[in-house]
Amino acid sequence: MSPEDPEPNLPEGSFMRILILGGDGYLGWPTAMRFSARGHEVHVVDNELRRYAHEQAGTDSLTPIRRLPERVAAWRELTGKEIGVTWGDLTDWDVVEAVFDSFGPNAVVHYGEMPSAPYSMKDREHAVFTQSNNVIGTLHVLYAIRDLAPDAHLVKLGTMGEYGTPNIDIEEGFIEVRHNGRADYLPFPKLHNLHFACRVWGLRATDLHQGVVYGIRTEETALDDRLLTRFDYDDVFGTALNRFCLQAVIGHPLTVYGAGGQTRGYLNIEDTLRCVELAVAYPPQAGEYRVFNQFTQQFSVVQLAELVQKAGAEIGMDVAVHPIDNPRVEAEQHYYNAAHTKLLDLGLRPHLLDETLIGSMFSTIERFKDRVIVDHILPKDRWRPIRPR
Amino acid sequence: MSPEDPEPNLPEGSFMRILILGGDGYLGWPTAMRFSARGHEVHVVDNELRRYAHEQAGTDSLTPIRRLPERVAAWRELTGKEIGVTWGDLTDWDVVEAVFDSFGPNAVVHYGEMPSAPYSMKDREHAVFTQSNNVIGTLHVLYAIRDLAPDAHLVKLGTMGEYGTPNIDIEEGFIEVRHNGRADYLPFPKLHNLHFACRVWGLRATDLHQGVVYGIRTEETALDDRLLTRFDYDDVFGTALNRFCLQAVIGHPLTVYGAGGQTRGYLNIEDTLRCVELAVAYPPQAGEYRVFNQFTQQFSVVQLAELVQKAGAEIGMDVAVHPIDNPRVEAEQHYYNAAHTKLLDLGLRPHLLDETLIGSMFSTIERFKDRVIVDHILPKDRWRPIRPR
Repeated sequence: MSPEDPEPNLPEGSFMRILILGGDGYLGWPTAMRFSARGHEVHVVDNELRRYAHEQAGTDSLTPIRRLPERVAAWRELTGKEIGVTWGDLTDWDVVEAVFDSFGPNAVVHYGEMPSAPYSMKDREHAVFTQSNNVIGTLHVLYAIRDLAPDAHLVKLGTMGEYGTPNIDIEEGFIEVRHNGRADYLPFPKLHNLHFACRVWGLRATDLHQGVVYGIRTEETALDDRLLTRFDYDDVFGTALNRFCLQAVIGHPLTVYGAGGQTRGYLNIEDTLRCVELAVAYPPQAGEYRVFNQFTQQFSVVQLAELVQKAGAEIGMDVAVHPIDNPRVEAEQHYYNAAHTKLLDLGLRPHLLDETLIGSMFSTIERFKDRVIVDHILPKDRWRPIRPR
Repeated sequence: MSPEDPEPNLPEGSFMRILILGGDGYLGWPTAMRFSARGHEVHVVDNELRRYAHEQAGTDSLTPIRRLPERVAAWRELTGKEIGVTWGDLTDWDVVEAVFDSFGPNAVVHYGEMPSAPYSMKDREHAVFTQSNNVIGTLHVLYAIRDLAPDAHLVKLGTMGEYGTPNIDIEEGFIEVRHNGRADYLPFPKLHNLHFACRVWGLRATDLHQGVVYGIRTEETALDDRLLTRFDYDDVFGTALNRFCLQAVIGHPLTVYGAGGQTRGYLNIEDTLRCVELAVAYPPQAGEYRVFNQFTQQFSVVQLAELVQKAGAEIGMDVAVHPIDNPRVEAEQHYYNAAHTKLLDLGLRPHLLDETLIGSMFSTIERFKDRVIVDHILPKDRWRPIRPR
């Protein structure tokens, strides 16, 4: 337990076998190290899909990241701890079955879906690939838990994007609906495979509807450059705050899409790890499906740009903001207010976004700024194509 | 226009090119004949998935149905009208692209998903197959419309099962939610690919959330035995009322699952055809996604069993009702009240269920009762497996 993180952890001695799906990723790799640091037995599965997608697009992580075997070797060298690795695809049942059979997890942290909307919106092939990859992979995971590890707790990372931007407050996965004099507590946005598997098969699952994650540094990645996690800033995998910080450092104007009123939940990468840890530490009952909204603060895109501008000004950077034509089809001004009390109730103490944190992101980006591929910062694909008529 | 069906049809002379996906099926084939009879140009696509699934399971339609080329030849011989046929799989983009390119539909009636919950609940392979088949096939259809027939109206047949059995009235696709002093009109049960494609790409789509269809006879299938449609009564594809009628005819007790309070919307096969016709005749605007709940009456399983019993008694049949252990995981007593005014507003005049209609189903079943495969009427698969511990 570090001095900066005096929150309660898993009860002393309750060590678990934790499987991390997508454990080579931006969050998967730091999560793997975190649980390993806490003394749990950790095994990761990944097929390097993100690395492959970058290769295809000619883009790359800002941070130079090692391949998984090297990461694990560096972790072993520095800490004496072992992280198991399976290179494999969750859509291949043989891979999933073999891992569950041999590892026998108590908890499964599932980052193994393709998360990027711009990726799936590129064209038909990308959309079909993304949806079949995500649906089949997650279905395999549900069957594997049902048949090979029925008491394991599934912690699935999803996106708050599923809620859309309704004109009402967003609750955590369910909403009390009163209608024509009757009431029910209904899944919102939807009933899906995870919920159904809990109800019908008696599995236990936590669905973490995540906001946009920012930041580069976790306690573990800071130990050694070989443990760095990726930092995407490109048009497909990059997200708002990370991209703005990078643009500020390389002296580009911050590119706000359209009016910039798009408001979303955000959280620090350290808080993501903590949320996942809390979800694992406090599992639901068998048959229970629960949803936590995983974010700590809401910002509009314009607010983020202003924060980055201000943090830049403090260290003498002159940061410009430049609105560009929005490549997405989305509301640029809308109501947004989402609940996020359940993780706070479990003990999350947020690291809030401020100029200091942005300043420390600037420093890390500065170290690697000669790796920036400038051609791939601005969006290339439009969600609504111009009709060829 | 037949004397029993004096409702308004498509305006005189407004003939359309109508593509029927899944046009070899229980509803697809009668729909193809109906539009052809009305003078439209009809093309069907099917990969005989239902026939294959029956073959694998050792089950079959009660009615002896011809293969699609023979059906189409018989239709041509009897009416002088041509129905085009493509044997192909919607998950194969080349098939979809070629059909849209060459046929250039004005309307696409999409029955081409695997509908059976018991089928997808059989095991992992069936679940993965069903979900990837349905997701990918429908995604291909959306892209084909976007890129090859952007003004075509998509009429997609889905299931009211998506709503579940909430304790509130079920509305048609959207619900007004008031929450914490604010209100929005939200998609319920969910925002999905169809809705998204209308919003983002400006497509036009009608999502028909269908109740359970019963009946064998349509105006066109009655013309000749070579035009018969299938009648499934087995444990996987059979549905409640059709199976009860068959059990009555062969002198088996009607098998009610559990308490039998499961209430759903039902409609006659003739009304299904009429609903689809109305949806096609009155298309939505570009960019509009609309949902119609397609059923005419609500019944509990016990009510259906009693109706069949009563209809049997009228012709001297002694029909027993026998509750069996429910193989599904579902509420057996629940509130159920679903809206279904939109199709009535367009002019639907329902054929309501009565003893006469059941009596005429009895007669058709009687003609083919030596084809019944008795071993495959009762359920074989349980949704919640017994844990091997």
